[in-house]
Amino acid sequence: MAGSEFGTIFRVTTWGESHGKAIGAVVDGCPAGLSLCEADIQACLDRRKPGQSRYTTARAEGDQVEILSGVFEGKTTGTPISMIIRNQDQRSRDYGNLMEVYRPGHADYTFDLKYGFRDYRGGGRSSGRETAGRVAAGAVAAKLLESLGIRVRAYTSSIGGISIDRNRFSWEEMEKNRLYMPDRKAAEQAEKLLEQRMAEKDSVGGVVECLIMGMPVGVGEPVFEKLDACLAKAIMSIGAVKGVEIGDGFLAAKSCGSANNDGFYMDGNKVKKHTNHSGGILGGMSDGSEIRIRAAFKPTPSIARPQQTVTRSGDDTEIAITGRHDPVIVPRAVVVVESMAALTAADLLLQSMTSRLDRIQKFFSL
Amino acid sequence: MAGSEFGTIFRVTTWGESHGKAIGAVVDGCPAGLSLCEADIQACLDRRKPGQSRYTTARAEGDQVEILSGVFEGKTTGTPISMIIRNQDQRSRDYGNLMEVYRPGHADYTFDLKYGFRDYRGGGRSSGRETAGRVAAGAVAAKLLESLGIRVRAYTSSIGGISIDRNRFSWEEMEKNRLYMPDRKAAEQAEKLLEQRMAEKDSVGGVVECLIMGMPVGVGEPVFEKLDACLAKAIMSIGAVKGVEIGDGFLAAKSCGSANNDGFYMDGNKVKKHTNHSGGILGGMSDGSEIRIRAAFKPTPSIARPQQTVTRSGDDTEIAITGRHDPVIVPRAVVVVESMAALTAADLLLQSMTSRLDRIQKFFSL
Amino acid sequence: MAGSEFGTIFRVTTWGESHGKAIGAVVDGCPAGLSLCEADIQACLDRRKPGQSRYTTARAEGDQVEILSGVFEGKTTGTPISMIIRNQDQRSRDYGNLMEVYRPGHADYTFDLKYGFRDYRGGGRSSGRETAGRVAAGAVAAKLLESLGIRVRAYTSSIGGISIDRNRFSWEEMEKNRLYMPDRKAAEQAEKLLEQRMAEKDSVGGVVECLIMGMPVGVGEPVFEKLDACLAKAIMSIGAVKGVEIGDGFLAAKSCGSANNDGFYMDGNKVKKHTNHSGGILGGMSDGSEIRIRAAFKPTPSIARPQQTVTRSGDDTEIAITGRHDPVIVPRAVVVVESMAALTAADLLLQSMTSRLDRIQKFFSL
Amino acid sequence: MAGSEFGTIFRVTTWGESHGKAIGAVVDGCPAGLSLCEADIQACLDRRKPGQSRYTTARAEGDQVEILSGVFEGKTTGTPISMIIRNQDQRSRDYGNLMEVYRPGHADYTFDLKYGFRDYRGGGRSSGRETAGRVAAGAVAAKLLESLGIRVRAYTSSIGGISIDRNRFSWEEMEKNRLYMPDRKAAEQAEKLLEQRMAEKDSVGGVVECLIMGMPVGVGEPVFEKLDACLAKAIMSIGAVKGVEIGDGFLAAKSCGSANNDGFYMDGNKVKKHTNHSGGILGGMSDGSEIRIRAAFKPTPSIARPQQTVTRSGDDTEIAITGRHDPVIVPRAVVVVESMAALTAADLLLQSMTSRLDRIQKFFSL
Repeated sequence: MAGSEFGTIFRVTTWGESHGKAIGAVVDGCPAGLSLCEADIQACLDRRKPGQSRYTTARAEGDQVEILSGVFEGKTTGTPISMIIRNQDQRSRDYGNLMEVYRPGHADYTFDLKYGFRDYRGGGRSSGRETAGRVAAGAVAAKLLESLGIRVRAYTSSIGGISIDRNRFSWEEMEKNRLYMPDRKAAEQAEKLLEQRMAEKDSVGGVVECLIMGMPVGVGEPVFEKLDACLAKAIMSIGAVKGVEIGDGFLAAKSCGSANNDGFYMDGNKVKKHTNHSGGILGGMSDGSEIRIRAAFKPTPSIARPQQTVTRSGDDTEIAITGRHDPVIVPRAVVVVESMAALTAADLLLQSMTSRLDRIQKFFSL
Repeated sequence: MAGSEFGTIFRVTTWGESHGKAIGAVVDGCPAGLSLCEADIQACLDRRKPGQSRYTTARAEGDQVEILSGVFEGKTTGTPISMIIRNQDQRSRDYGNLMEVYRPGHADYTFDLKYGFRDYRGGGRSSGRETAGRVAAGAVAAKLLESLGIRVRAYTSSIGGISIDRNRFSWEEMEKNRLYMPDRKAAEQAEKLLEQRMAEKDSVGGVVECLIMGMPVGVGEPVFEKLDACLAKAIMSIGAVKGVEIGDGFLAAKSCGSANNDGFYMDGNKVKKHTNHSGGILGGMSDGSEIRIRAAFKPTPSIARPQQTVTRSGDDTEIAITGRHDPVIVPRAVVVVESMAALTAADLLLQSMTSRLDRIQKFFSL
Repeated sequence: MAGSEFGTIFRVTTWGESHGKAIGAVVDGCPAGLSLCEADIQACLDRRKPGQSRYTTARAEGDQVEILSGVFEGKTTGTPISMIIRNQDQRSRDYGNLMEVYRPGHADYTFDLKYGFRDYRGGGRSSGRETAGRVAAGAVAAKLLESLGIRVRAYTSSIGGISIDRNRFSWEEMEKNRLYMPDRKAAEQAEKLLEQRMAEKDSVGGVVECLIMGMPVGVGEPVFEKLDACLAKAIMSIGAVKGVEIGDGFLAAKSCGSANNDGFYMDGNKVKKHTNHSGGILGGMSDGSEIRIRAAFKPTPSIARPQQTVTRSGDDTEIAITGRHDPVIVPRAVVVVESMAALTAADLLLQSMTSRLDRIQKFFSL
Repeated sequence: MAGSEFGTIFRVTTWGESHGKAIGAVVDGCPAGLSLCEADIQACLDRRKPGQSRYTTARAEGDQVEILSGVFEGKTTGTPISMIIRNQDQRSRDYGNLMEVYRPGHADYTFDLKYGFRDYRGGGRSSGRETAGRVAAGAVAAKLLESLGIRVRAYTSSIGGISIDRNRFSWEEMEKNRLYMPDRKAAEQAEKLLEQRMAEKDSVGGVVECLIMGMPVGVGEPVFEKLDACLAKAIMSIGAVKGVEIGDGFLAAKSCGSANNDGFYMDGNKVKKHTNHSGGILGGMSDGSEIRIRAAFKPTPSIARPQQTVTRSGDDTEIAITGRHDPVIVPRAVVVVESMAALTAADLLLQSMTSRLDRIQKFFSL
C-alpha cells in the first residue's frame, strides 16, 4: 500500500530519502487564491533545520525549498503545489557500517524484513529527514488556516522529565531559547541535563504541546473521523512519538465526572466553558475552545554508547553509533507537530463545509 | 464528509443511532472462505452488553445480531457482510428533557452547531451505543486474524487511579470479575471506589490496555500509515478516549536512549529483543514483539449531580442527568478497544502483502 | 479490496445477494436537513421493479424499503442513512442446476476463480438485483440535487438497434410505455422485436441516455477526477454496460475541430454555447450546458437457447437457462443509470465547494 | 478536492502546468525489488514527445525525466518514486492573447469559473502536457506488470473516420508509421486527410485501441470497482476522450444474447472462450482473455480558423488560435492510453491478492 499520503480534501504526498537526491511534497486540494511564496515555506523549514545549537546535529542540510507548480503570480491556482528540497550534505560514508547491522530503536530491522532490502546509507525513508516534506506541506496548511482566522502553535513542554512551569509560561521566551521552551528556568535546567547526557554518550526524550486557536465549532466528524482521532494519527505518525493526549489526557482517567466535565455558560450571546479539560473537542468535534494536544517523544535512538544488536546475516554483535546526532529530537520536532496539526485541521475544516443543507444552499446562491 | 467508515482494504461502515430502529455495520473486503456465524459476533457483543453488574446500566439492550449478507454455507463469500442489531428498549421519554439543554461533557452542543439540529432523544449517533457496530465488525476482523495466528486481547488496567499490579496479573481473574481487571485485589479496591462515587452521584475514568500477539514483522507503512498511527486513530475514535500510548508511551519521554532502546539478539535463528519498550513497533512497522497499546478513558459525563450548562436558546441553566448510566465506561469499553485494534491490524496486515515483488511473484505462481 | 463503496464525500456502501436475506445500502455524508421519507426511495425502486410487463421478469420482488437510521422527524440528520429491502420470493430451487455449470456471459466463472467458491443459488452479488441498493442510494442523491436545483433524467434511446427519432421525442410518452422510450413509434417497433426474440429464446441489448440539468459551472476536478471520468466509472460499473459516451462520444472521433468545438456567445450577461457537442463538460468540469451521457447495454446473457459451456470440474457441456429472465435489461436499467449519475453528480458537487478561497471565506463568515 | 491522484494501492499523484517550471509524478505503493531506471521511463515519454512528424507540434519539449527518490542500486525500494521533467521551451508569449478570451473546446471558461482565475499562459493544468506525468507513472506500472507476465499495448485504430482493416493488422507497421496505425494503407489515407485538414486550418479526431494481455482470471471487484469501470474512468480522464468501450462496446447494444455471449470450452485443462465479445471482462472481473478497450478522441480544439467566443469581461468576440498545435491528438495519445490502462491494471492486480483466505494463509507461510 501507499502510505505516503495524508488527508482527504487537503491532501499531501511526501517523498524522498535521507541520502537520495532530494525530498519533497505535493499538496493537492489547496483552494485557489491563497497568497503563497517560497519564503512562507522556508520560514517553517528553518525552524526544523539542524545545526542551530550544539544540541542539534552539525550537518548543514541547507534545505532551500523550491516551488515547482501550483502557484501563479503569487497565488495558489487550485492545482497541485509541488515543492522540492535538494539534499546537499549527504556524506554517506558516515553510515557505511550500517549496511549489515540493525540499529536498536531504529526501523532498520523492520524495514529490511518488510521490503527485502533497504537503503543502508542512512534511515532512508524512515529518517527524520522525511519530516521536511511534512513541514513544507504544513506551511501551506498553516497559511490557509491563517487566512480563515485559525492559528496553530507548538512548544516544548518537557525534556528528559524537566517540565515547564505554567506560571512562568512565555511565548517570547520560547522564541529565544533553542529548545523552544516557553519557560527560561526550565530551559536552563534542560540544557544542563542535555550536557550531562551528551557526556554520557546518551540521549533524552521529551514532550511537545500544540494549540489550535480560533477553530469554529463543529469541525471533525462524529464517528471514525473525529478531530481528536485524526490528530492522534497525524501526531503518532511522526517517528519517535509514543503517546498522544487531548486535553487532560491520561489525567482524565484518574478524575471524576464532576471535575472533568466542562460546564457551559453564556458570555453575552456566546456559549463558553468554565474549564477546558476536554481540550477543545467534544464528541470528536471542535467545541470552540482552544484545542490542546500533547505528544511524547522517545529519546533519540542513535547513541554513541555500545548497544547489543544483530547483523543481517544473523549474528550477535555490538554497535556504537558515531556521527552527528541530536541528543534530543524534541526542539526540532516542535514545528513538525505544528505542521501535522495544521494539515489535519485544514483538511477537517474543509470537510466540515458539507454538513448542513441550509449552508450548502446559501453557498451555491452566493 | 462521510466519517462512518474505517479501513482501506478490510473496511467497515457503521450506522445507527441510540434511539433509532436499529444499528449495524457493513464489513467490505473480508476475504472469502472464513468460517463465520452469528454466534461468533454475538459472543463479542455480549461482552459490551450493559446490565451485567450494578456498575453497568440496567437497560436491557438485548443486542441480538443478525447477519444479512456475505456469508453462505457458513463461510464468508468475499462480498459485504451486513450485520444488524435491532434497538429494543428505547424508553425515549427518559431523555425528553434533553431537547433544549446541552449536557456538559457530551456532544450535544457541538452536534447541534455542526448539523443544525439533532436527535434529542439521546446521544443519537454520538451515543456509546454506536460502538455496537464497531464490536460486530471487530468480531469479524478478530476471526480473520485468528485464522492467521494473530490474537488481540484487552483488559482494564486501572479505574479511577487504582491500577493493577503486574505481579498479580491473571487472565483467568480478568474473565471472572465484571470490571475485566486481571488482578483481583485491584478489582476489589476499584469496586469500593465505584460504590463511593455512585453514592456521591459521580463517575470515574480508567485505562484499558490491549495486546496484539503473533503479528508478523513488517506490518504497517513507514510514513503516514504507520501501525502505531493507525492504532492511535482507531482507539482515539472511541468516544471518551483522551489519550493513547504505544509501548512505554509518556514514560519514554522521561527516559534516556540507552534505557529505552530495545537491544536485539539471536535466539537460534530468530531475531529477538531483550526488552519491549517500543511496544512491538519500530518505525511504524511491527517488530515481531507483542504490540502494546494503552487508552485513557475520561469519566462517564452523565452524572446525577447538578451541573452548570446552557439551553439551545441561550440561557444559563442547571442539569442533573437521571436515568440509567454506568458510573464507569471502562469495563464495557474493553471489547471496543479490542475491536478497533483488530480492525486496524487486519487492514494493515492485508495491505502489507504488496510490499515485495519477490513475494508477489510467488503469490501469482501459487 | 472492498469495492462495494462509491463516492468520496457523498458516499454509498451497498450490500446483499440475490438469494440472501436482504439487500441494502448505507449512505454516508448526506448533509443534514434534507426532507426524506421511505416514499421518496420507494418511488425510484418501483421503477426498476420487475413484473411490470411481459418483457420484465414475473418474479414478484416486492422491494419494500425500510429506512433504519439517519432520518429524524422527516429530515436527514447528517449521520449514515441505512436502508434495507428484504428479499421475498427467492425460489432458490430454480437455480439449483447452476451449482456446477458456468453460465456464458455471466460472472459465474470469474467469481469462482476469484473467491474460491460462490453462492450458486443465483448471481449472488453479481446479480442484477444488486442494483436495488444503487437505486435506493441514488434516490437520496437525486433528492439532494433537486434541493439545489439540479435534475437527472434518463430514458431508453434504443433497443436492439431500433432507436428513437429525436423529432418525435416526448417525455410524456416515455412515462407511458413500459420500455421508457420517449418515442411511441420506436417503442412499438421495439416491442415487436422483443416478441420475436422471445419466440427465438433469445435476448437483445440497447442504449440508455441520461441528462443532468441545472448543474452549476465548474463541477468536476481537472485531472483524474474529471466529471466525465467519474460518470464513466459510475455507469460502466453497472453490470451489462459495455460502452459510455459523453456528448457526441464516438461520433466526435470522426468529426473535425471546426464542427466539434462549441462556440461561446453572450446571452445578456450569461455565457452560452451555440451547440453542445461537448455534452456539457469541458476539461472535466461542467460548462453550464445540459450534461449528456449514453450507456450501451449488452443483451441479457440468460437465454433459454442451449449454449456451449464447461463445468466447475472441467468438462464441456451445454446449458439452457430456464426460469424468469428479462429478454432485455434496458427498461429496468433506466433508473439505475439515473441513480449512478445522481450519486456522481452529488459527490462532485459537494467536492467543488472547496475550490476557491474567496468562497470559503464567505462560507465561514455566513 | 484533490483530484490529481489515481489508484488505491499502486497510486500516482501528478503535478505541474504547461508553462510552470516542471511537471512530475510521484508513484506511491510500487512494490520493492523492481528493476527500474530513467531509461525505462524515458522510452515511454519519447513516444508522446511532440515534434516527431509534421502532424505533431514542432515545440521541442525535451522531456528528460529524472528519478529523485524510491530507487536504490537500480531497484525500487517500496518508497515513493518521485519523477521530474523540467519544462524547457515555454515561449509563454505565444499564449499572451489568451488572457482575456475563452478558447472554444478548451477548459479556459470552466477553469476560470471554478478557481476564480487561471494561468493564462497556456492550458495550465488542463494542458495536454499534463499527460507527461501519467506516462512517467504508467512506465513504472508497465514495468511491474511485465515482471508478472502482463503486457499492455495500444495503437491508433482510426483517424477522422479512416479505420484500420483488421486483415491488414501489423504490429510491425505500427512501429514504423508516425500515426501508430497497424495498417499501412489506412495510415497513408489518414495522412492525406490530415494534410487536407491542415490546409483548411482544421483538425480531426480518432480512436485508440488498447489490449491487456496475460492478466490472470479474477482481477477487478464485482460491484463499483469493476475492472471495466476503473478502466473507463482511467481512460475518460484523459483530456479529449469522449467515449470508452470494452469488448464490442456499442455494437453489443445492437446484438442478441445468442451472438454476444462467449461460450466456454475446455482446451486441455484450461477454460477458454470461443469468442471474446466481452473484451476479456465478465462481471467486472478479468476472464483470462485479452482485455480490449477503445477510446474516442475528439478533434484538437485549437484551430487556426476563426471561431466565435466571448471574453472574460463578457463581450462577444472571435478567436483564431495560431502557434504550434497538432492537427490530431491521437498518435501522441496512444502511449497515454497505454499508461492509464497499465496504472489501472497494476492497481487492481495488487488489490486482487486479498480475495481468498486460502491464498492469504499460503502467502503468510511462504
